[in-house]
Amino acid sequence: MTLKFYHAEPVANSLKSLIALKEKQLDFESVYIDLHKFEQHQPWFVAINPEGQVPVLDHDGVIVTHTTVINEYLEDAFPDAPALRPADPAGKARMRYWNKFVDEHVMNYVSMHGWHRMVSVIARSVDSNEFETLMERIPLKDQRDKWRNARSGFSAEQLDAATAKVEAAVAKVEAQLQKTPWLAGESFTLADANFFSHCGMMVARMFPQIGNDERCPHLLDWAERMRARPGVKAALEMPDHTNPALRTFTGEVH
Amino acid sequence: MTLKFYHAEPVANSLKSLIALKEKQLDFESVYIDLHKFEQHQPWFVAINPEGQVPVLDHDGVIVTHTTVINEYLEDAFPDAPALRPADPAGKARMRYWNKFVDEHVMNYVSMHGWHRMVSVIARSVDSNEFETLMERIPLKDQRDKWRNARSGFSAEQLDAATAKVEAAVAKVEAQLQKTPWLAGESFTLADANFFSHCGMMVARMFPQIGNDERCPHLLDWAERMRARPGVKAALEMPDHTNPALRTFTGEVH
Repeated sequence: MTLKFYHAEPVANSLKSLIALKEKQLDFESVYIDLHKFEQHQPWFVAINPEGQVPVLDHDGVIVTHTTVINEYLEDAFPDAPALRPADPAGKARMRYWNKFVDEHVMNYVSMHGWHRMVSVIARSVDSNEFETLMERIPLKDQRDKWRNARSGFSAEQLDAATAKVEAAVAKVEAQLQKTPWLAGESFTLADANFFSHCGMMVARMFPQIGNDERCPHLLDWAERMRARPGVKAALEMPDHTNPALRTFTGEVH
Repeated sequence: MTLKFYHAEPVANSLKSLIALKEKQLDFESVYIDLHKFEQHQPWFVAINPEGQVPVLDHDGVIVTHTTVINEYLEDAFPDAPALRPADPAGKARMRYWNKFVDEHVMNYVSMHGWHRMVSVIARSVDSNEFETLMERIPLKDQRDKWRNARSGFSAEQLDAATAKVEAAVAKVEAQLQKTPWLAGESFTLADANFFSHCGMMVARMFPQIGNDERCPHLLDWAERMRARPGVKAALEMPDHTNPALRTFTGEVH
């Protein structure tokens, strides 16, 4: 049995499945993909994932993409490893409700701020001809649009709308964590890994006006409990090759 | 055991879970919610689903919302009924890949055209004061924005961008159906119910320049095979109270 995981830095989607792999204590071969060098758009990688995106799971030749799908796949394929999905149908439904919420109402909005602060610097660091060559290699139109937007700069209106979505999401999560210790109830699930990777881990740093003790004490407490989990800790300790000058998104900024 | 399903007309999200219920041959109590009368925003309904949206499943008091979540719940809660989800982990992952694609890249874009053609007429039929009262009752900000947009009219730019998404989705589905008879492989799954309800059933009528024999013969053949399934047929035969003058979205337009 071989389990191979192609991923970038331990943040956002790459972190989300690294947490699942580490929490399930699965052995896997880590293949680092350098987003700073646009490796995810190289022909060898696009041959593995035609969408040209990280992360990707390769389980004995079965290729699985999109982290919500990858993480459920790990639950289905490794039933003897520690379960990160509730056993009862109602618990599974609560977990999936939150996964869907994070996928559709959180991820892209935090991501826009991340791209604005970090990826736009990368996008602007290449000259126009080289940029067009890079664009031609990106398989998904939505991703091409995102890169062009990052290069030209997101508008204040786009960024404000994204901030409003983050604000609403934090309020919703805070209300849930007042009632239950984890998003889907009494136990840690894939929904916690999802919200942590896309928002919870960086909200205090990226949006200090939202992610603070007044507005979301339960969320910040939950984030500490997340960081204390051995699996989450191991995932966060995976190599981070981010250019330190660009580390506004993954943290440790000066 | 009681299974209650609150739903509107057999199209889009309501149809998607009606197909699952009927294909699984489950007995359920149907509760019709009249969207023309904004019943989904009434206090009695918001007490059941705080998001004020149809459909909703009530299984012995367990409330499940969002059709992708509802349909997986039915698989988990009724393992002895006909399975609409592959048994193997790789098959489940393929099904979830397509579900995610339809949820994130199809549903809202076809829906915008549906709202533009139908819901905007409803939204404009109420006077300004009444409209504001209705708006105050809608729990989700995104839904309030959608209603305001429907009343003021979507822009040509918004509609063109939505059409481009539908075009890309149809090309992607057509390419898959050239390779396999159903979206996730050799068998009908929840992914087929999803794409059919949000796009496949109405693409030829709503977007004749896209949904035609030249551009997507395999998709149109698949849509016929869908309609021939007894469960899909039974779901499509559920009552349709749409004002006939507004029936551009659900069909039978004059």
